[in-house]
Amino acid sequence: MRKNIFFEQKGPFLPSEIFDNKNLKLKIKIFDVKPLSEASNSDLTFLDTANYSQLAKFTKAACCITTEKLKLFLPNTCEVIIVKNVLFELCKATRKFYPNADIDTPDSSLKKPIKSKYSKVRFGNNVFIGKNCKIGRNTVIGSNTIIEHDTVIGENCLVGSQIVIRNSIIGNNVVIQDGCKIGIKGFGFIPLQEKNLRFPHVGRVLIKDNSELGANCTIDRGSLGDTVIGKNTFLDNQVHLAHNVKIGNNCMIAGQVGFAGSSVIGDNVSIGGQAGISGHLKIGNNVKIGGGSGVVKDIPNGTVVMGYPAVPLKEFIRNLKKK
Amino acid sequence: MRKNIFFEQKGPFLPSEIFDNKNLKLKIKIFDVKPLSEASNSDLTFLDTANYSQLAKFTKAACCITTEKLKLFLPNTCEVIIVKNVLFELCKATRKFYPNADIDTPDSSLKKPIKSKYSKVRFGNNVFIGKNCKIGRNTVIGSNTIIEHDTVIGENCLVGSQIVIRNSIIGNNVVIQDGCKIGIKGFGFIPLQEKNLRFPHVGRVLIKDNSELGANCTIDRGSLGDTVIGKNTFLDNQVHLAHNVKIGNNCMIAGQVGFAGSSVIGDNVSIGGQAGISGHLKIGNNVKIGGGSGVVKDIPNGTVVMGYPAVPLKEFIRNLKKK
Amino acid sequence: MRKNIFFEQKGPFLPSEIFDNKNLKLKIKIFDVKPLSEASNSDLTFLDTANYSQLAKFTKAACCITTEKLKLFLPNTCEVIIVKNVLFELCKATRKFYPNADIDTPDSSLKKPIKSKYSKVRFGNNVFIGKNCKIGRNTVIGSNTIIEHDTVIGENCLVGSQIVIRNSIIGNNVVIQDGCKIGIKGFGFIPLQEKNLRFPHVGRVLIKDNSELGANCTIDRGSLGDTVIGKNTFLDNQVHLAHNVKIGNNCMIAGQVGFAGSSVIGDNVSIGGQAGISGHLKIGNNVKIGGGSGVVKDIPNGTVVMGYPAVPLKEFIRNLKKK
Repeated sequence: MRKNIFFEQKGPFLPSEIFDNKNLKLKIKIFDVKPLSEASNSDLTFLDTANYSQLAKFTKAACCITTEKLKLFLPNTCEVIIVKNVLFELCKATRKFYPNADIDTPDSSLKKPIKSKYSKVRFGNNVFIGKNCKIGRNTVIGSNTIIEHDTVIGENCLVGSQIVIRNSIIGNNVVIQDGCKIGIKGFGFIPLQEKNLRFPHVGRVLIKDNSELGANCTIDRGSLGDTVIGKNTFLDNQVHLAHNVKIGNNCMIAGQVGFAGSSVIGDNVSIGGQAGISGHLKIGNNVKIGGGSGVVKDIPNGTVVMGYPAVPLKEFIRNLKKK
Repeated sequence: MRKNIFFEQKGPFLPSEIFDNKNLKLKIKIFDVKPLSEASNSDLTFLDTANYSQLAKFTKAACCITTEKLKLFLPNTCEVIIVKNVLFELCKATRKFYPNADIDTPDSSLKKPIKSKYSKVRFGNNVFIGKNCKIGRNTVIGSNTIIEHDTVIGENCLVGSQIVIRNSIIGNNVVIQDGCKIGIKGFGFIPLQEKNLRFPHVGRVLIKDNSELGANCTIDRGSLGDTVIGKNTFLDNQVHLAHNVKIGNNCMIAGQVGFAGSSVIGDNVSIGGQAGISGHLKIGNNVKIGGGSGVVKDIPNGTVVMGYPAVPLKEFIRNLKKK
Repeated sequence: MRKNIFFEQKGPFLPSEIFDNKNLKLKIKIFDVKPLSEASNSDLTFLDTANYSQLAKFTKAACCITTEKLKLFLPNTCEVIIVKNVLFELCKATRKFYPNADIDTPDSSLKKPIKSKYSKVRFGNNVFIGKNCKIGRNTVIGSNTIIEHDTVIGENCLVGSQIVIRNSIIGNNVVIQDGCKIGIKGFGFIPLQEKNLRFPHVGRVLIKDNSELGANCTIDRGSLGDTVIGKNTFLDNQVHLAHNVKIGNNCMIAGQVGFAGSSVIGDNVSIGGQAGISGHLKIGNNVKIGGGSGVVKDIPNGTVVMGYPAVPLKEFIRNLKKK
């Protein structure tokens, strides 16, 4: 069972301990909280929308927070914990396992890099690096950059200046331009009057080989799963990725594009400048999204879309002519 | 009378000195320049649009820069100074009181923090802090962050890395993520050929308790009044607030949203990603603004709007169907 | 012949060496790669679209990469090199002249500034500066800012904190606010499966007198030509300029505006917040572009446009009424 390397993890707990409810009879110890598709038979998961019924059907989770209405999608192997507000209970449960992942307290292990430990790495001035980081040979790190504990960066990478990286696993030949903030806590919380309840973000950012990030991008880490940027995918300046976004291989994302949480983007997708992708969408392979578009629905493979809300290009042009 | 703690302030001046016009007979000394609603009977104010006629009616200001057409909105207690270009004369007058607030000259008092002075604060590496700052206990400041003179930060705050804060008063339990630039000079100037005349920005940024700012946000300080972020209001990454924007309590502002100057946002407002709010608008309480919307008109309490320009949701959906 | 001061430059080469093609009989040595209008009779240039046929007609270039179809636009003085994919061949040729300009390896000559060398300049804390920089008197540089080799900054400038500047020539009385990244490599590459081929960016950023950049702007340098910000032009926060964009004098660009590559903007242009300007466009003088607009076509002098896609204001209002 993989322990979370980036966050202090408590447990295991009995369900009755997690939910402070003695009526929960399930006697199995729960080790972690995971998304439906990643949970093992000692993990807790959650289901809060019928959109994920297909993933629910095949989950291996020991138990699942859900509602009376959604419980039918879960297999018999999975104990259901019926609640009114799935995300609120999930948030509280996750905070029990991960008491320190709801805000990004700066890494107190940061120090100037020890040359002998990183003999094949070239560091600029005033770089700070946390404990247990791994950086591959021939990688260059620019000045004033901060790399927090346990981060992994591959070989032949170029990490520019004034960057923050935490909770991230970065491949080989990756270019990250100045000012990027990577692996930060996402915009996830349960809205409450007086004081919102912050969702712990215990996922990571995975950036695959040969990819590139432009200047001043912000890449949130996953909440429970990971945020992923695929191989040979290039992002321009000021792109924003919310938590759990997954972008495929060979994509081109132009400047100032924004992705809301949990959307999944296929391979060979190109997105024009300032386009916005709503949350929880599935964008197919070989999709082209015009600049400034607002995507609010899933897009099938090979489609070209444009507009706000985005529609297939032919429809967009037809609508323009009607005006 | 409160002196401006962030900027060197000249005066008091007679109106004839401020405007270099010996015909101005008013003999009262003017101590400051303030917005209509904040001016006392020793302050100068201005009125340049009938939209603020209601505020004008109740101003306590000693005198007011305005036009022949607008002077009727002002009370008898307020001397009027009739000009052709209100903002140009206001700019010149404000520069007389505040000769150093038109550009953000970096604070020359910045030093590494003295541990004994901030014994309950945890600082990262290479933090620079100006004179007279106050930082509450249990607050953590990340590496490479700059906090300029006289800034106030409350207790239990988390200020990330690579941040700049100036001219700001920040409450308790506030989270500010990496790369934010807070309290900077706004985009205010009188356009002139060859060399624009920059408006002095002598206001502050007030960030209330329990609020949160995502990474790489830019928050301009007020020009004459303040820029305000209310209690328990959360901003996602790359949000931009122009000068004098006031956001209420319990709001949720998603990624890459932009606010033009002087708009006032109510409580419990949620705004989707990449939406834009034009200047000088009033957005009511409990308003929901869809992602990517462009708001160009006031929005009453409880309304859901969407689109560019933003219209009530029902109208937006009806228009889509017509296409 | 001006050598590129920012990048290591190889050559001169015979065309047969550049293209590894012994059939190219041209015996003149080629010294550099330049855009059509800037190429001298010892330079290589390129023509990949009929949009630039007028510039092609008057080019002084010794030779030009182009297609069978486009070669007719070139003068007799210019040898044509016919290829299938102009940009791919241009990219490979440019990489031969400039082997180190395809990624922004941080400047290894960065050091704390020597006071005697910059006696009239005020530096904040922890500034790093590369070799051969020139900074004019009375210029102030904020803390944690990085200025890479050979950069030129004029007199009376204010460069804020946490800024990166490279490959740039900056005039007098320029204000650059905190967090800007200037002169970075643009988003230019030949998309290939597995590993895109990055285009070398050997141009510069030119920022003219009296201009201003808001916080967290990203300004890419030119690929072959320059990126230019004209005199007395003001940019608000979070503006993004892609490679080779040229903005005229006395323009006002509001927050979060984005410019795709190679567009040319006239004088006295004002652009509202979050507007987007597509690539390779020509925006005339005295144009006004409404906030949130998406500009996809050239705009003639003196036009007011609005909308997505942007149309003349009257048409925009008429379309709204029809809904």
